Amino acid sequence: MTTLVTGIGELTTQDPERGTLQDAALVIDDELIAWVGPAASAPAADERIDVEGRAVVPGFVDSHSHLAFAGDRADEFAARMAGERYDGGGIARTVEATRAAPDEVLRALLARRVAELRAQGTTTVEIKSGYGLTVDDELRTLRLAAEVTPETTFLGAHVVPAGTDVDSYVALVTGEMLHACAPHARWIDVFCEPASPHAFDGDAARTVLEAGRAAGLGLRVHGNQLGPGPGVRLAVELGAASVDHCTYLTGDDVDALAGGDTVATLLPGVEFSTRSPYPDARRLLDAGVTVALATDCNPGTCSSSSMPFMIALAVREIGMTPAEALWAATAGGARALRRTDIGVVAPGNRADLAVLDAPTHLHLAYRPGVPLARSLRSPTRRRLTRR
Amino acid sequence: MTTLVTGIGELTTQDPERGTLQDAALVIDDELIAWVGPAASAPAADERIDVEGRAVVPGFVDSHSHLAFAGDRADEFAARMAGERYDGGGIARTVEATRAAPDEVLRALLARRVAELRAQGTTTVEIKSGYGLTVDDELRTLRLAAEVTPETTFLGAHVVPAGTDVDSYVALVTGEMLHACAPHARWIDVFCEPASPHAFDGDAARTVLEAGRAAGLGLRVHGNQLGPGPGVRLAVELGAASVDHCTYLTGDDVDALAGGDTVATLLPGVEFSTRSPYPDARRLLDAGVTVALATDCNPGTCSSSSMPFMIALAVREIGMTPAEALWAATAGGARALRRTDIGVVAPGNRADLAVLDAPTHLHLAYRPGVPLARSLRSPTRRRLTRR
Repeated sequence: MTTLVTGIGELTTQDPERGTLQDAALVIDDELIAWVGPAASAPAADERIDVEGRAVVPGFVDSHSHLAFAGDRADEFAARMAGERYDGGGIARTVEATRAAPDEVLRALLARRVAELRAQGTTTVEIKSGYGLTVDDELRTLRLAAEVTPETTFLGAHVVPAGTDVDSYVALVTGEMLHACAPHARWIDVFCEPASPHAFDGDAARTVLEAGRAAGLGLRVHGNQLGPGPGVRLAVELGAASVDHCTYLTGDDVDALAGGDTVATLLPGVEFSTRSPYPDARRLLDAGVTVALATDCNPGTCSSSSMPFMIALAVREIGMTPAEALWAATAGGARALRRTDIGVVAPGNRADLAVLDAPTHLHLAYRPGVPLARSLRSPTRRRLTRR
Repeated sequence: MTTLVTGIGELTTQDPERGTLQDAALVIDDELIAWVGPAASAPAADERIDVEGRAVVPGFVDSHSHLAFAGDRADEFAARMAGERYDGGGIARTVEATRAAPDEVLRALLARRVAELRAQGTTTVEIKSGYGLTVDDELRTLRLAAEVTPETTFLGAHVVPAGTDVDSYVALVTGEMLHACAPHARWIDVFCEPASPHAFDGDAARTVLEAGRAAGLGLRVHGNQLGPGPGVRLAVELGAASVDHCTYLTGDDVDALAGGDTVATLLPGVEFSTRSPYPDARRLLDAGVTVALATDCNPGTCSSSSMPFMIALAVREIGMTPAEALWAATAGGARALRRTDIGVVAPGNRADLAVLDAPTHLHLAYRPGVPLARSLRSPTRRRLTRR
């Protein structure tokens, strides 16, 4: 079954050979892109969708989320905005709610959140565990997350739970918990933040990451969010796919990123929602670092699931152009997940696309907060142009 | 035909006697609210809608927009974000596009934009002219705007068009143009900004406003956006319903607002989209000033039509609590339009409501960029809960 998508006013391919096309078309064959080019030379197909001049971009790749949780912490957010200090301790509340939620409740929450993402143009999402913090609850979280995405990340090392010490918890995370969780995860991640009493220092983070790698998992790091630290350099040294946050960077950190193949994933929704200093994307881009944007959607520090909002923030606050921000939210996210089949619109890649209710990609930053993007991935494909 | 809306997890009434209700219901009789109270004591009705625990708030009242235009200026926005200076001259480009657009094109654009607002929970929108700047084009703009809202504002005094001087343009605005436009407008507005070569100083603004008042129009002012000036005090002195922007205020300005009955309408989307300093809502609220929030949706300085985004910005950037921001976006907007039939959920008022895909109003700021709000105003009423 082939589908011709025509009437594309602007097509951002992120493919260096094709660039951005006006008056474009593409052909989808089942789940894959079969053809991309000018509308005038489009081949025939079994069915045809006219997007009536709208812009089409690669579906957003949200490479950092914590969607597997129960409860919310809107009251904590409101208190923080009123001037209270946030130290990360609020995670314990989400851990309690998540442990208490039956499978069916968590499954329904995950399904609802993924639908919310898709409705906003996100076609790939990474989901971390980290609100279980016991062998059974981490395993359960990952099993459920794996039902909705292949990009599952074991984040037992999210925080050190109350009532235990870091050494014995790291032993659990790298022992029984890793053994149970590894079959259900593609990645392992660790919150490396020596400044936080709840997180992990460089040595503990190295132990976690090396154990994960030995178990066959790819590496990701939460690093340099709350202050300077070893997270970024450790991530690069160990060949992690991505180090996320990158708010406090030294010159050495930037040099390490520029010289390695670890993506710097920026999460400006966190700084928006915690009123913290923003990272500096311009500095990273000018140094030649590969930058991705993601939501970090979680109940504490950023409850937004909107990739268009992250693009708008990236343009307003962290020195990216609209084109750079869109690249970071699509091809950049794909790099951060070491995926070559998404994030770029090219024949053979997955037909994961977003349609904008707008003539150009600039509108994602030009019209902040307006729900312009929707995913154009089957089975919702047909419905989208009827609106 | 009466409709019982039940399953309301949280109902923000903005009615001092009722406050915020949990497990609430309300009855709509045609276009009006007939009953508000606890779900347990709800009366019978002809039909019933269950919003399944969602929060319900008054429909947003967007008391400042410039929706009657053609074209866009996304490229100007991108250039500004890249560091170019914005001096307001870009309005001329929108004037040219708007004049060139046939009635049917402008009518379709207005219909599409109003639908976009409604889909985001806005149930009342004020629309200004100001991209015509000739008698015929201002009149045409207002006629078309009046087809979609009763809150039409004659803003012939938006900028002084190229090729004319301020005195002769003010004579036109207060003479032939006002005579033609007044029957199609409820309000008159003027861009009072002595710092801008394209706008009007205090004397010119006074002339425009006094002429409008004599023609039976209510008064509104764009004031103190780009620098200190006489706009705010002039608005209060003349009894304007609202003075909008209020970015640069002296102590005297704040005292004048606190002592008068002119609403201060803040438009933080403008500062977001122009990377300008934000106004200080906290200072105004602490002084006892009535504050409204609106989008200013226009092709130059803020192309967002999202009232939830303005609420999120108000909480993040200008010192408002989520409850204050929601009040400003609903009851505050109604005050800015001198309307008592909207903005407050109470029997006898219009049944203009927004439903949130969230359990509380806090989520509007807690989940920035996520399309949580939709209007629950007939005829879309039935469709909303099916999603």
